[in-house]
Amino acid sequence: MQSEPTSTTRTLGDLLSPLAAQAEAALAQYLPEEASPEALTAGMQYCVEGGKRLRPALVYLAYNACGGGDDELAARCAAAIEMVHVYSLVHDDLPAMDDDALRRGRPTAHVKFGEAMAILIGDALLTRAMAAIAERGTASAALCVAELATGAGCSGMVAGQVADMELCEVADGLEGLESIHRRKTAALLVAALRMGALAAGASEAQLAALTTYGEKLGLAFQVFDDLLDVTASAAELGKTPGKDAAGGKQTMASLLGLDGAREFGERLTADAVAALAPLGGASEPLTLLAEYLTTRRN
Amino acid sequence: MQSEPTSTTRTLGDLLSPLAAQAEAALAQYLPEEASPEALTAGMQYCVEGGKRLRPALVYLAYNACGGGDDELAARCAAAIEMVHVYSLVHDDLPAMDDDALRRGRPTAHVKFGEAMAILIGDALLTRAMAAIAERGTASAALCVAELATGAGCSGMVAGQVADMELCEVADGLEGLESIHRRKTAALLVAALRMGALAAGASEAQLAALTTYGEKLGLAFQVFDDLLDVTASAAELGKTPGKDAAGGKQTMASLLGLDGAREFGERLTADAVAALAPLGGASEPLTLLAEYLTTRRN
Repeated sequence: MQSEPTSTTRTLGDLLSPLAAQAEAALAQYLPEEASPEALTAGMQYCVEGGKRLRPALVYLAYNACGGGDDELAARCAAAIEMVHVYSLVHDDLPAMDDDALRRGRPTAHVKFGEAMAILIGDALLTRAMAAIAERGTASAALCVAELATGAGCSGMVAGQVADMELCEVADGLEGLESIHRRKTAALLVAALRMGALAAGASEAQLAALTTYGEKLGLAFQVFDDLLDVTASAAELGKTPGKDAAGGKQTMASLLGLDGAREFGERLTADAVAALAPLGGASEPLTLLAEYLTTRRN
Repeated sequence: MQSEPTSTTRTLGDLLSPLAAQAEAALAQYLPEEASPEALTAGMQYCVEGGKRLRPALVYLAYNACGGGDDELAARCAAAIEMVHVYSLVHDDLPAMDDDALRRGRPTAHVKFGEAMAILIGDALLTRAMAAIAERGTASAALCVAELATGAGCSGMVAGQVADMELCEVADGLEGLESIHRRKTAALLVAALRMGALAAGASEAQLAALTTYGEKLGLAFQVFDDLLDVTASAAELGKTPGKDAAGGKQTMASLLGLDGAREFGERLTADAVAALAPLGGASEPLTLLAEYLTTRRN
C-alpha cells in the first residue's frame, strides 16, 4: 500500500505546478526569436526541456510575496533566469569542463549536437535571457538585467565555476567550499528573488529579507545536492551520481559527514525561513519551498 | 623618404585616437567587478587588450552625430560592445570552433589559460557587458541592453557563427555569404550605432539612418576582411592569414574575385555613406570611418 503524501508535500505540489506551468508559458513566449536559425532554436529548446523550474518559481514567489506589480516583467524574468541556469549547465557539461554525458536523463548538449553547437547554444541562451528582460524597456527592467548579470557573472556564478574548477585561489575546507556554493548556486537564486521583488516595486527591507533568504537557501540547496550525489541513484537524479566522490572532490558530505551535512543543511533552511519574517504571511510559499528541500530526492 | 599621410588618413587618426582613449577609460572603469577572482579579471583583461576599438568608436560617433545626451550611458555601452566583441573572438577561437592559436599578435585565450578558462572568460565578458549597461538603471539603458543582446544573440552574431560553421542551413553563393556576414559582423555594428543613438535620445529617423549605415558598413568591413585574408601577412594582421582559403571556405574574394570583391566593398561603403544624409554634418566622422575601411591593411 502506498503511503499518503504528507500535507506539506501535497501543499507544495499544489504550489509549484501552476508556477511551473507559468514558467513553461513564459519560456515558450520569450525564448524564441523569429529570425533565429531553426537548428539553433531547436537546440536551445532541447536544453531547456525537463527542468524543475525552481528559479522561475522563486521569481514568481518573491513577486507575489511583495504584492505584485508588473506581471509581464515578472514573466520575462522567470523565463530569463531559467535560460541563464540552463546555459550554465550546457557550458559546465562541456568536455573541457565537467565532461558530463547525461543531464535531466538525456544526452547533454555537446553529445547531442556537437561541442561547437553546445557552446553556441549556451551563448545564445545567455544572450536571449538578457534581451527577454531588457525588451520590456523600463528602468525596472534595467535593474532586473543588472541583478541577473551580477548573479550570473564574474563575481557570481561564473566566478563560482572558476573556483570549483580550481582555476583561481580558493580557501581550504568549509570556508572555501561555502564561497564556491555562494557564488555558483546561491548568487543566481538571489538574483531570481530580487528580480521578482523588483518587478513588484519592493522596498529595500523586502529586498534585504529576500537576499538573506536566497543566500541561505542556495547553500542549503547545495548541501542537499551533495548528499543526493552520495545517496541517490542515476534513475532518481537523471544525471550521473557519485561523480564528486569519484573525482576526489571536497563536498559538504566529505567535509562534515552525512549526518553533519544534513544538520548543516537543516540549520541553513531554518535560517532562510527566519529571514522571511519581515515579509509576513505572503511569504509562506517561500517557507514551504525551503522546507521541501530537506525532503527532496532529485 | 617616407611619404606624407594623406589628409584623410591624418584626419581619421585625429578622429579615432581620442575615441580609443575614451574606450580604454570606459573599459578600465566598467569591466572589473570588485568581487571577481583575480585570475578571472586578469584573463578578461588580457583578452580585451590591443583591439582597434572600432565598435566603441561607433557608439561614440553615433552618440555625437545625434547630439549627445547621457554621457555615462554612452561610455557604458562603449565598454560593453567591446566586451561582447571580445567574448565572441574568445569563443570563436576555441578548438571546437575555429581553433585559432593567434589573435591580435598574441596567444589566444585557450592557448594562454586553457580551454575551460577561455570558455568562462568569454561567458564572463558577455555577462559583464550586460551588467555594465544595465547598472545605469534607466529605461534607455534597458533599450540599449535589448539592442546589444539582439545584435549579439540567436538571430544576430551567434546565428552568424552557427551559419558560418555550417551548423544550420545556409543559402548557396553570395546570398548565403551575405546573410552570414549580416548576422556575424553587421548586427553588432548596428547595435553599437543604435546604442550610441539611444544614449543621445535619437529620433526614429536618426536610428533608421544609422541602421542602414551599419548594415552596409558591416558587409563592407567583411568584404575587405576577406580581401586582407588573401593579401596580407600575419605580421600585418596579427592573426593567421589565409585560413579561409586553406579551409576551402567560400569568401567574397573566392565568389567575386579580388577585383569584384573590392568593387563590391567600395559600393557598399558608398551606400553606407549615402545613408547618413539625414544626420547632416554631425555625421561626417562616420563618413571618414567608412572610407577608412577601403584603405586599411589590418
